[in-house]
Amino acid sequence: MGAVITLTTDFGLADGYVAAMKGVILGINPEAQLVDISHAIRPQNIPEAAFVLSTVYSYFPKCTVHLVVVDPGVGTRRRGIILKTSTAYFVAPDNGVLSYVVQDYSGKEMGQDNKQSAGLPPGLEAVSITRPQLWRSPVSTTFHGRDIFAPVAAHISLGLPLRDFGETLSAISLLPLPAPHPDKDGALVGSILHIDSFGNLITSIKSRDLPEPRQKVTVEIRGQLITGLSTTYAEGDGLLALIGSSDYLEISLKTGSAHAFTGAKVGDAVRIRRDKGGRK
Amino acid sequence: MGAVITLTTDFGLADGYVAAMKGVILGINPEAQLVDISHAIRPQNIPEAAFVLSTVYSYFPKCTVHLVVVDPGVGTRRRGIILKTSTAYFVAPDNGVLSYVVQDYSGKEMGQDNKQSAGLPPGLEAVSITRPQLWRSPVSTTFHGRDIFAPVAAHISLGLPLRDFGETLSAISLLPLPAPHPDKDGALVGSILHIDSFGNLITSIKSRDLPEPRQKVTVEIRGQLITGLSTTYAEGDGLLALIGSSDYLEISLKTGSAHAFTGAKVGDAVRIRRDKGGRK
Amino acid sequence: MGAVITLTTDFGLADGYVAAMKGVILGINPEAQLVDISHAIRPQNIPEAAFVLSTVYSYFPKCTVHLVVVDPGVGTRRRGIILKTSTAYFVAPDNGVLSYVVQDYSGKEMGQDNKQSAGLPPGLEAVSITRPQLWRSPVSTTFHGRDIFAPVAAHISLGLPLRDFGETLSAISLLPLPAPHPDKDGALVGSILHIDSFGNLITSIKSRDLPEPRQKVTVEIRGQLITGLSTTYAEGDGLLALIGSSDYLEISLKTGSAHAFTGAKVGDAVRIRRDKGGRK
Repeated sequence: MGAVITLTTDFGLADGYVAAMKGVILGINPEAQLVDISHAIRPQNIPEAAFVLSTVYSYFPKCTVHLVVVDPGVGTRRRGIILKTSTAYFVAPDNGVLSYVVQDYSGKEMGQDNKQSAGLPPGLEAVSITRPQLWRSPVSTTFHGRDIFAPVAAHISLGLPLRDFGETLSAISLLPLPAPHPDKDGALVGSILHIDSFGNLITSIKSRDLPEPRQKVTVEIRGQLITGLSTTYAEGDGLLALIGSSDYLEISLKTGSAHAFTGAKVGDAVRIRRDKGGRK
Repeated sequence: MGAVITLTTDFGLADGYVAAMKGVILGINPEAQLVDISHAIRPQNIPEAAFVLSTVYSYFPKCTVHLVVVDPGVGTRRRGIILKTSTAYFVAPDNGVLSYVVQDYSGKEMGQDNKQSAGLPPGLEAVSITRPQLWRSPVSTTFHGRDIFAPVAAHISLGLPLRDFGETLSAISLLPLPAPHPDKDGALVGSILHIDSFGNLITSIKSRDLPEPRQKVTVEIRGQLITGLSTTYAEGDGLLALIGSSDYLEISLKTGSAHAFTGAKVGDAVRIRRDKGGRK
Repeated sequence: MGAVITLTTDFGLADGYVAAMKGVILGINPEAQLVDISHAIRPQNIPEAAFVLSTVYSYFPKCTVHLVVVDPGVGTRRRGIILKTSTAYFVAPDNGVLSYVVQDYSGKEMGQDNKQSAGLPPGLEAVSITRPQLWRSPVSTTFHGRDIFAPVAAHISLGLPLRDFGETLSAISLLPLPAPHPDKDGALVGSILHIDSFGNLITSIKSRDLPEPRQKVTVEIRGQLITGLSTTYAEGDGLLALIGSSDYLEISLKTGSAHAFTGAKVGDAVRIRRDKGGRK
């Protein structure tokens, strides 16, 4: 079956590790359509992989299998999991890399508190990957992407039911996702989730979090103030703020890198105020 | 239909933006063969994207759809276009990124003068992309690659006629392409169009522009003189000049980077003289 | 036929050179499954390409065609070759880039001595690429990847017999592959073959070369000592040594780059001693 299988890893593209996974997949499902999401996740950076995946998976056809291998715990007792939603399958180590996917189905923000496993929201199913009959053999202790996750993804793309891979799980590991919150002065405080390759600063603040009217909003990042929201990257001069293509508030520089210009880093605070009207 | 769709962008491969476009395409045409041309175009560098595309598109099978998204004007009033040639389709913002393709069909150089829209040469057809029925909905203001250009390319690959996408255009935007010209001393003056990842300096001078005999040609770049043309990268020592694989005069260093060695940049002048015979 | 064709080059992904090869292949075999192994081989680094290919090719389905273009001698008299094994085809310049593949079939190490062509081990067949009827025309002098190797790989993937491409060869060029050897103190001396993008140092010492028991082995790299072998990257603190996913001894740093930490380079010596029991 010509199912789509996507790949997201921190392997880079220099060494052939990604290609080894693709070879294994094509040996099991020669008709698979393989699509790279990113292999430039920084080494072992689970939150980055989780975020990048979250901005992309919903654009793929129904029944796409998303294979995610950012796996600092490879060879240890951390388990592998398959998560099934109404539209897709995810195959990954159980280290929180699917947190945004779960959040998308939970319908509410997951605050800083719920550190670890939480019950799955309705509509999601998960199993642990425990049946070695569907893996390569022997399994290396250092490359489960090739020996376990890739063959599992390929078998899912062929239509094998989830129960063939392992036991049903009622919860999976989740990261504490940064959620915007008000500070004592009434500002909304979010943080930078991701910096893209254009140097755009993507914040944890979504469209629905913003006060109205948006023309009167002031965005503060590292001491810089931006008044009002733009609609396109081509507007205005200097720094601008807009709602980006994944519905997050984004800070951008018209002809340059907002990252280089502000020196901002992932995790830095972003403050949103309703302008009192002193400036228009 | 298993049509080929190529992708050329300045998105990089770290963020998943390219993958989002691929997901959208595969949702419309699951049989599409997706091929990356380059996603390492420098941000918003339209001339670079135009050049890289021009060196590659003619090697693809008939009816390939080339999707090009280097789009600093995304969300503004710049229009999107489809260009159809005798062998291929191109889907892109109307910002000049298809200038070399048009030049290939116009049979003459486009000098520094014709800045903007010129009439299309015979054999080419163009339409504006104006019918939202074939787009994703809603359309973001910042990512037309995903929401407009990718679905349009996918629908073209399924065989939809051009008129379904918008109105016929009699002209499209063109860049002023650097054309070699004689200087007052009779030398031919070209410029560096592109520096490849080996550090080869690819000039605007084509094979047909060179005086004969080529063994007596002297090439000057940033004060360095190269006498005679080589046939392969493995010849001689130091800098050498040869006709590269896209028929442009190229300056190369046998075991190293001509870019690093000369310090040359895109746009730097290259002078060609017929050697008077002082050296042979 | 939906055969898999892999690509390994030093072209990078910025310039469109790889895409030109893919376009040529798809013009000949529209059903080919194209998989990139690596295009980040350092320019003209034949040993690196040979190593990366060797860690990947065996994971691909039977009859995969592996196209390898790291070709400093392009346009000179170096010949092109096709090598056929029991499970795969390889298309490459005859410059040693297939040395590890030949070694895998020869069942013994190839020491520092056998510099050049050696007879092929049983089970392997090779032909020279000499019949221009199956190439693009005209053939450039600088890009045989596009004009010769890509069309040849595509025609092989369609099932053409080897004899259609050229004459049978009894030997091909081989690199001297670094083989571990004992020093006068009884230590086993190997060297660093490859540094991956995580900064792991992959040595020339294979699992079978190690003395037992492995818990008592001491690994020395640039003055640093590592006692005992680990099973996973997550064990211990600081530097660790383990058998990596391609069965080579590998030196790694738990949360960082062993490359940056040790300053080691490809070719540096690695010494293995059986610990006398002074430390346990």
